[in-house]
Amino acid sequence: MHSLTEQNYIQQLSIDCVIFGYENQQLKVLISTLKFKGDFQVLPSGFIYQGEDVDEAARRILEDRTSIKDTYLEQFHVFGKADRSNRAFLDRLIELNPDLVILHQQQRQQYEWFTRRFVSIGYYALVDMAKVIPQKHEIDQSITWYDVRQLPILAMDHNEIVQKAIDTLRLTLDQRLSAFSLLPESFTMKDVQEVYEAIYDKPFARNNFQKKILDMNVLERLEKKFTGAANKAPYLYRYIK
Amino acid sequence: MHSLTEQNYIQQLSIDCVIFGYENQQLKVLISTLKFKGDFQVLPSGFIYQGEDVDEAARRILEDRTSIKDTYLEQFHVFGKADRSNRAFLDRLIELNPDLVILHQQQRQQYEWFTRRFVSIGYYALVDMAKVIPQKHEIDQSITWYDVRQLPILAMDHNEIVQKAIDTLRLTLDQRLSAFSLLPESFTMKDVQEVYEAIYDKPFARNNFQKKILDMNVLERLEKKFTGAANKAPYLYRYIK
Repeated sequence: MHSLTEQNYIQQLSIDCVIFGYENQQLKVLISTLKFKGDFQVLPSGFIYQGEDVDEAARRILEDRTSIKDTYLEQFHVFGKADRSNRAFLDRLIELNPDLVILHQQQRQQYEWFTRRFVSIGYYALVDMAKVIPQKHEIDQSITWYDVRQLPILAMDHNEIVQKAIDTLRLTLDQRLSAFSLLPESFTMKDVQEVYEAIYDKPFARNNFQKKILDMNVLERLEKKFTGAANKAPYLYRYIK
Repeated sequence: MHSLTEQNYIQQLSIDCVIFGYENQQLKVLISTLKFKGDFQVLPSGFIYQGEDVDEAARRILEDRTSIKDTYLEQFHVFGKADRSNRAFLDRLIELNPDLVILHQQQRQQYEWFTRRFVSIGYYALVDMAKVIPQKHEIDQSITWYDVRQLPILAMDHNEIVQKAIDTLRLTLDQRLSAFSLLPESFTMKDVQEVYEAIYDKPFARNNFQKKILDMNVLERLEKKFTGAANKAPYLYRYIK
């Protein structure tokens, strides 16, 4: 559990990352399952070094877990309830994993800092899933994508953090044009509509939707998509930043 | 400078409040001018007690400076650059105010915590200026409203914080219906248009604007405003939350 050892971090401040991907008409979130007994599932998280910008720390955590550097990343909310602490989480983990030597009494004091109240800064990222190779940490059993509509119960307030990220994504999607970050380089208009439908979890009327997107004036039309049936082939588009 | 003495605060974390008011077609921000030599001007700020929710701390700071409890208040951004610190600010203050006994060597160590790097959580509030009586602190010469288009140079990154608050206000105004919080209980459609024009710093076409606002379905039409000229009197409206 090297990542829980106190280093030169700002105390009582953490970062939680909601990393969104998109596949098969589903909006997905990257969740890590800890290798301890008890099915502990959490968002990718981390801390801020004294000499590091908060945004830089978020980018480091994102890169560490996805192996990609340049993608859409945005700070969206601070979770600052006074009763927000890792203590209950750690207590339960030790209760279910009594054999976990590293967490026994003599070593516990070095994790004391970790059980204090934490204020957490939420960031969400939008990634092209095809480019991401999720990276396990030493303490992870796995790190995988979950459909946001079928999320497991996450540790602490992480379900609430995901929900707030989705709310913010919906609230600012049109102004920030962020949906395109979930798609590959080129895509059809149907792909755009489906990604919007996955984000808002509701259908849109095709003609209105298409008009709205084209009116944004941010897409370049490319060649037709090769489908074998030339006359019905849809155009491909590319997002111009 | 009681407010700078270390208490049971979360270390290296602060709150800055951008308190918006509206008057004479101007969007205004509440700024405090410190009573020391050097024209130091800052946003109302404060810290978070260990046992206090971050939102609660922001509300306490807002109430402390405006004497009002219930008004629109929203967390909007975290300012987390690694080089964000009060040290340069405090050094300059001492340089220009060498007679300031309380900041001399022997007392300086108790303010040491205050000169470290701080991550600041930005909140903006929207208030009905007529209800606010700005409250001076011991260290303030004055606390007054400034037109956002004519802000002085503020200490640290406080100008940047105000700008980000304005950007966020503009980005989410229609979805959050927050503009009405700047107006008194009842207002004319012209008042609404003028508050929007102040926020976006640009004119809107009257007919389109009026239609857009009425389509939101959040206003109740009251009696006509008494102007003396009955046939031209505009209707008053009230915002229904």
